[in-house]
Amino acid sequence: MNRITAREASERVGKPVRLAGWAHRVRQLGGVTFIVLRDRSGMIQCVAEGIDEACELTPESVIAIEGKAVAEPRAAGGVEVHVRALSVLAQAPAMLPFEVNKKAIEAGFDLQLDERVLSLRHPRNMAIFKVQAALADGFRRALRVRGFTEVHTPKLVATGTEGGAEMFPVQYFGRQAYLAQSPQFYKQMLVLAGFERVFEIGPVFRAESHNTSRHVNEFTSLDLELGFIESEEDIMALEEDLLGEMMTYVVETCREELALLGAALPAVGEVPRISVPEAIKILKESYDWEAPAGEINPEGERLLGDYVKKRFGSDFVFLTHYPADKRPAYTMPHPEDPTLTKSFDLLFRGLEITTGGQRIHDYDRLVASFRRAGYDPDAFASYLNAFRFGAPPHGGLAIGLERLTARLLNLNNVREAILFPRDKDRLTP
Amino acid sequence: MNRITAREASERVGKPVRLAGWAHRVRQLGGVTFIVLRDRSGMIQCVAEGIDEACELTPESVIAIEGKAVAEPRAAGGVEVHVRALSVLAQAPAMLPFEVNKKAIEAGFDLQLDERVLSLRHPRNMAIFKVQAALADGFRRALRVRGFTEVHTPKLVATGTEGGAEMFPVQYFGRQAYLAQSPQFYKQMLVLAGFERVFEIGPVFRAESHNTSRHVNEFTSLDLELGFIESEEDIMALEEDLLGEMMTYVVETCREELALLGAALPAVGEVPRISVPEAIKILKESYDWEAPAGEINPEGERLLGDYVKKRFGSDFVFLTHYPADKRPAYTMPHPEDPTLTKSFDLLFRGLEITTGGQRIHDYDRLVASFRRAGYDPDAFASYLNAFRFGAPPHGGLAIGLERLTARLLNLNNVREAILFPRDKDRLTP
Repeated sequence: MNRITAREASERVGKPVRLAGWAHRVRQLGGVTFIVLRDRSGMIQCVAEGIDEACELTPESVIAIEGKAVAEPRAAGGVEVHVRALSVLAQAPAMLPFEVNKKAIEAGFDLQLDERVLSLRHPRNMAIFKVQAALADGFRRALRVRGFTEVHTPKLVATGTEGGAEMFPVQYFGRQAYLAQSPQFYKQMLVLAGFERVFEIGPVFRAESHNTSRHVNEFTSLDLELGFIESEEDIMALEEDLLGEMMTYVVETCREELALLGAALPAVGEVPRISVPEAIKILKESYDWEAPAGEINPEGERLLGDYVKKRFGSDFVFLTHYPADKRPAYTMPHPEDPTLTKSFDLLFRGLEITTGGQRIHDYDRLVASFRRAGYDPDAFASYLNAFRFGAPPHGGLAIGLERLTARLLNLNNVREAILFPRDKDRLTP
Repeated sequence: MNRITAREASERVGKPVRLAGWAHRVRQLGGVTFIVLRDRSGMIQCVAEGIDEACELTPESVIAIEGKAVAEPRAAGGVEVHVRALSVLAQAPAMLPFEVNKKAIEAGFDLQLDERVLSLRHPRNMAIFKVQAALADGFRRALRVRGFTEVHTPKLVATGTEGGAEMFPVQYFGRQAYLAQSPQFYKQMLVLAGFERVFEIGPVFRAESHNTSRHVNEFTSLDLELGFIESEEDIMALEEDLLGEMMTYVVETCREELALLGAALPAVGEVPRISVPEAIKILKESYDWEAPAGEINPEGERLLGDYVKKRFGSDFVFLTHYPADKRPAYTMPHPEDPTLTKSFDLLFRGLEITTGGQRIHDYDRLVASFRRAGYDPDAFASYLNAFRFGAPPHGGLAIGLERLTARLLNLNNVREAILFPRDKDRLTP
């Protein structure tokens, strides 16, 4: 008889079952042990009477059970397992750093991260990462049907996308390399190489020393790049469709996880577009909020999220026309006002989750833009040279997977959406 | 009228079409220009008569075409496009470092890698990466239906899986970090955290200084880890099914790419198992080949690949029972002979493409094994501690995606299956 999951067992009333998992909850009651067994599928109550191995069982021990599934209206899910045999594969200590069978873990967040293997066992935490996997998979599915190829580009690089600031140096056979801040150059080069449409889901590294609830130093980027566009509008339209399909996929595949997390996913219709100059005016007029140095910082983004929610009923807003001096040198200037660019951010409930735009595809123009930004084109030769051999108009975007997850599920800290977060103070576990 | 691909155009005989792509081949013939347009879907012949823009067209220029699809038995695919309008979006120089419209690129491999954006345009190279994407996706699909969760684990780590040798050091906010050699510790910890079944597709980094056709310093690892196994046999059985499903998926989704590459995919049935001691005996008896220091090196693996092909008609062989002193400290010793382990490699046509096995899941035993191997358990505390809270029996494996791709497609060098390879001498592009 093969092992089945708790969920499968709940559909086999009257049949013998074999299960394995963790003892989520253990209660001794007059010679009978009530065990809630937890596995990757969920939980099921198991009742052990006259089973010696059950008497000393501690919560979080690993157990294997043989028994019979029986209808029991008082049990959660309406089914329980009458245990015939139980073996303890690994006994957990009587004292744990914290309990994972309460509604929430009662321990500081740092301790929860220190003991990540334990805190992840809490069903809410498990659910976060099931939703996250579905988001990434939804991204992938939506792009694959549109002819995108999934690629893997190097994380060890010779120069940075934006010139080496905020990069981690790596000792590479006696020379200095860096960890890639983004696959930006490589995804563009692959469009030029004829793939036309590529995407990558992979780690990016930022040596930013600020340590906020929104920032970590390693995260997962959902990157895409697309050739033969008319303008950055094509990228924004693609993102609208993409996010819509991702939400639908998550709703379809993570119904229980969303219910457990009490999360309602947003509808993604046509997302309002507001240019940065316009947004600065709106913030001044509606909130008496002054953009410091003409920049919409996180506080401005929060207010803007509030504004579009009230004004358009939208959880999303595209901020467009970013000033050229705030965007990387490869960003396409706006034809009507070259101090602005054909780039955008997407804010979701007042938090930036995407940066994107059209790129410069003409070699001479690109080299001039790098020079103007103060970069030595020779240091970027392997990227710039690619534009000599026929480059189509193109653009793309990047979505921070953990930020998107956290915002979607109303988590307070992006670290809650990272299995093993990395920041200035945390390199373990 | 929307743009369509070359493939779509070939199915629209008699209809107007709008295309964009690269001028793969350009031929002037008595006032008529014959252009083979190449895009992400394939190629189509376009005929431009009396179109000024076509007269000076160079190969590899980026073009947009409007015209009409017309049946033409003499054209490849039986359809050509009669061009009504042509615009050159980017003109390629008359002299390219090498041509990409011949059967093979006539240039040294190093130059092809230096000019990767150009060499990737060759249809054979494009096909390699379409097959590679399908392999990774087939892996993912096969695991998802088996209840595996896709995860993302940190690439910045404090200590190495095997003790810090052959790792790249990273400067991390004034302290030393390393690049992960493998997600080994993390995938095990996630099994323990209750995910039970996890997989990851991501980069791994090896600071090995040898520079062979099989080795690079950054590659993509297909990793999985599985809880509640009986033995390493469960992992091997899973890999048989997995590889079978991956091959089927590639055949179904990459028919044209496989034809272009002249690759026949292997049948994956029951894979023969040979223990390392047995294999050493076979190599001695059948090939008079002596294993240096009791180890089956790449030459031994090649001979063994030959042996199982002749003896069992199999392209694959599991080498089992690796000596304990050749495997990491977390490897489960063999109960019948503790100098051997419950671990395996999978050889494919004589090349190692997988390492896997059962791991030690008992805390005390694991700590003792780390000590015996000469490691300080304190340095691995965040990994080892996880085993105190109830760890199920588990095991897993890792497949090198690029090696698998290269072997499957009979490529001479693993670098042909990497978009932008990294080795001791190459950090760009």
